[in-house]
Amino acid sequence: MRWRYILKITGIFAIFFGLTMIFPLLFGLYYKDQSVVPLLISMGITIATGFLLLIFFKSPKTEFINQREGMAIVAIGWIAVGLFGALPFYIGGVFTTFVDAFFESASGFTTTGASVLINIEAVAKGFLFWRSFIQWLGGMGIIVLSVAILPFLGVGGMQLYKAEVPSPVPDKLKPRIKDTAMTLWKVYALISLAEIVLLMIGGMDLFDALCHTFTTMPTGGFSTKNASIAHFGSVYFDIVIIFFMLCAGVNFSLHYQMLRGKPLAFWHDSECRFFLSAVLLLTVVVSFNIYGSVYEKIGQAIRFGAFQVFSIITTTGYVTADYEKWPAMSQLILLLCMFLGASAGSTGGGMKCLRIMLCFKYCYKELFSLIHSRAVTQIKIGKKSVPEDVMRSVLGFLALYMGLFAFCSVLLAGMGVDFVTSFAAVAATIGNIGPGFGLVGPVDNYAQIPHLGKWLLIWCMLLGRLEIYTVIILLVPKFWLK
Amino acid sequence: MRWRYILKITGIFAIFFGLTMIFPLLFGLYYKDQSVVPLLISMGITIATGFLLLIFFKSPKTEFINQREGMAIVAIGWIAVGLFGALPFYIGGVFTTFVDAFFESASGFTTTGASVLINIEAVAKGFLFWRSFIQWLGGMGIIVLSVAILPFLGVGGMQLYKAEVPSPVPDKLKPRIKDTAMTLWKVYALISLAEIVLLMIGGMDLFDALCHTFTTMPTGGFSTKNASIAHFGSVYFDIVIIFFMLCAGVNFSLHYQMLRGKPLAFWHDSECRFFLSAVLLLTVVVSFNIYGSVYEKIGQAIRFGAFQVFSIITTTGYVTADYEKWPAMSQLILLLCMFLGASAGSTGGGMKCLRIMLCFKYCYKELFSLIHSRAVTQIKIGKKSVPEDVMRSVLGFLALYMGLFAFCSVLLAGMGVDFVTSFAAVAATIGNIGPGFGLVGPVDNYAQIPHLGKWLLIWCMLLGRLEIYTVIILLVPKFWLK
Repeated sequence: MRWRYILKITGIFAIFFGLTMIFPLLFGLYYKDQSVVPLLISMGITIATGFLLLIFFKSPKTEFINQREGMAIVAIGWIAVGLFGALPFYIGGVFTTFVDAFFESASGFTTTGASVLINIEAVAKGFLFWRSFIQWLGGMGIIVLSVAILPFLGVGGMQLYKAEVPSPVPDKLKPRIKDTAMTLWKVYALISLAEIVLLMIGGMDLFDALCHTFTTMPTGGFSTKNASIAHFGSVYFDIVIIFFMLCAGVNFSLHYQMLRGKPLAFWHDSECRFFLSAVLLLTVVVSFNIYGSVYEKIGQAIRFGAFQVFSIITTTGYVTADYEKWPAMSQLILLLCMFLGASAGSTGGGMKCLRIMLCFKYCYKELFSLIHSRAVTQIKIGKKSVPEDVMRSVLGFLALYMGLFAFCSVLLAGMGVDFVTSFAAVAATIGNIGPGFGLVGPVDNYAQIPHLGKWLLIWCMLLGRLEIYTVIILLVPKFWLK
Repeated sequence: MRWRYILKITGIFAIFFGLTMIFPLLFGLYYKDQSVVPLLISMGITIATGFLLLIFFKSPKTEFINQREGMAIVAIGWIAVGLFGALPFYIGGVFTTFVDAFFESASGFTTTGASVLINIEAVAKGFLFWRSFIQWLGGMGIIVLSVAILPFLGVGGMQLYKAEVPSPVPDKLKPRIKDTAMTLWKVYALISLAEIVLLMIGGMDLFDALCHTFTTMPTGGFSTKNASIAHFGSVYFDIVIIFFMLCAGVNFSLHYQMLRGKPLAFWHDSECRFFLSAVLLLTVVVSFNIYGSVYEKIGQAIRFGAFQVFSIITTTGYVTADYEKWPAMSQLILLLCMFLGASAGSTGGGMKCLRIMLCFKYCYKELFSLIHSRAVTQIKIGKKSVPEDVMRSVLGFLALYMGLFAFCSVLLAGMGVDFVTSFAAVAATIGNIGPGFGLVGPVDNYAQIPHLGKWLLIWCMLLGRLEIYTVIILLVPKFWLK
């Protein structure tokens, strides 16, 4: 492990990251609020730390990063930006304790959207912009992570995409990591721009349109309003946001293909088909379930049912209805959506449709092998067969996900949190959703969780966001010793 | 699929099974209660049906049963005895609907112990004896299933034991299926006898001692008392039952080895070590958690904590304390125990320690492979390496288990059952435990579940008991068509 190199890269991260604090600063200056000084101080600390790291850890230029170093950079990088991102909140006095500031920042960078802020609307605009903006940055990080880094690290079955990137087909994504990332960022920015425009056409002011776009596209879910999207009470905004949540939940390389004139790309991708079918099916079931029992009009049932299903399955976490008042079936479906999650290669969290789909196929193959004991069938995604090691990686991921979910739920309950809240909070953070059930339900937030519990949930957010392996491996002594 | 043959075997089952109704009949006659006539009628119907099947479906004698036929016999056999077993309850008017009678009977045969009987103590002794006795018979069925049938069918990783049975070591279990079954039944009967004697020494009358032994050894959990084991309020009974629940949760071939003079067999078996460590650890955590908050004396905390952990992890389901009043952490641990379950080769249910252990090793291996990308490590149980196909089977089992759990929970909630009860009822039936949480908690029972929900839960009990594959495969059209 070349520590000098890892810390040097962290330093570069910090400098770039410090510079992005200019954007909230501009809003702070425009609104002349109390966020200006804390943002300036935080910016100074972040950039200075970056330079110090750069100076202290000079290392020869290297082109090659090995697998373990790659994982260490990802995990350390995410934790570092989480810490730096918390500075404005802590210095600005938005929170009285550092853990709260760190929780909010980590929840932002991991695009979870679990908040410990009680009265959001009372906070200075500069801070609120920062809170949304870090989700957007987090989303950019995830795109690079899931399409360019994890496939090469061979984590959790993401290596499936490795083969996809340097494809002989000229229309496919450009082969090199840097180019791939830049291309996808352009797509991300373009779709974001479209959302900003559409929200403003509907009458949202620039500030709110920016903030909500910055939290829709990374499937983050922070809102500038206490009541989340329910605040606006507008069918138009609901529809626009539903559409963009869906966009954010789809593999971004498919958006790129569509922009290059292949509108059928979505349909040709079997994971995307699975995702869209799941969303549609669950929306129908939930809408039908809440029609009559909660909403008298079918239109209302579809509007609120669809919004909540899209919001949870894409792991955004926006709220337009108190789904804890819905029938148990709808609640359980939403809980299931938290585990299911969006597509791999999207900004969404959860287990990801690709893995669930592979797991289904695996089970079917096992059943099939009991009938035709000698038949060796190959698991396929589309027309490509899935290599054994990818399948192993996927199953290991799912097992670790469930195991850690169970273990962390018990730990959280051990801190005095109630039964339902314990597992819902862990499910909602490990899946990077945001709102859960019980104390952390759609109309509550995470402020009531004890401090130690907040640390645990920060850990869960990182676990989920960095596809588990990257974080859990830091606990294996052999990882460090070799 | 040779239907004639399968139905003929079912007929033989029915005749033997009808004859076992003599035992409750003897108790009915002794207590001169209203169970005599219904038992006689049920016996007549069962035996007559058996003979009819035998006469109608004559088939040439055959030594060889293929894999699919084996699975069909297991599934159909279990459903058939469930139906016949329900006759006394239905004819005797213990329940007004057939689904309730079938639920109670299926819960007995699958050794689940989930009851729909509201006032147990008001029921005639003959019926109560039958209710306990079918659990004991179910336990015998499971021993044959898990040690002699499933390994040869290659279901859910149980083929690991295939290699174990025809071992060159003379002290190991006898090679042939029939002998193996007979040997294990002797062990089962011997331990049962020991429990009857110990319970009677403590002052329990013969009837209760028999009934409780018949529901401890198969990890069933039906009691003749409304308050379950809490009725007796005796430390002695608690200790005796804890001990025998533990015995029932251990692989029966280890008991055999111990009886043959190898007391260290338990320690040499890595699954048994895992099981004992888990039980011990969880007991300590739960006892510590309820000490102070629920029980003022440490002795009480250990007594009730241990009883409940042993009862749930072995999937027995006896109750001495209302664990729903315990802190959330203990409740979540008990919920976890429902999934964990006892050892493979025991009469317990759940996912089984062996599979969880293999899953742990699998995850560790996956993590390890990220560090040493070229190292090929073999997963081992003790000194034996686990073949790839066994591992695949185990992972497929775990995935199916979780998937079916989630699916059935949503279905149950769709029938109007509340959030917590829905998943707890499914977890407690698919794991063959009995009591769950919410409406089906330790001081309640399954009477309030809607009819359709009871059918669903019967299906869950069968799924869990027959190791999922055997039941789910009946839904694959190819299974029947070939």
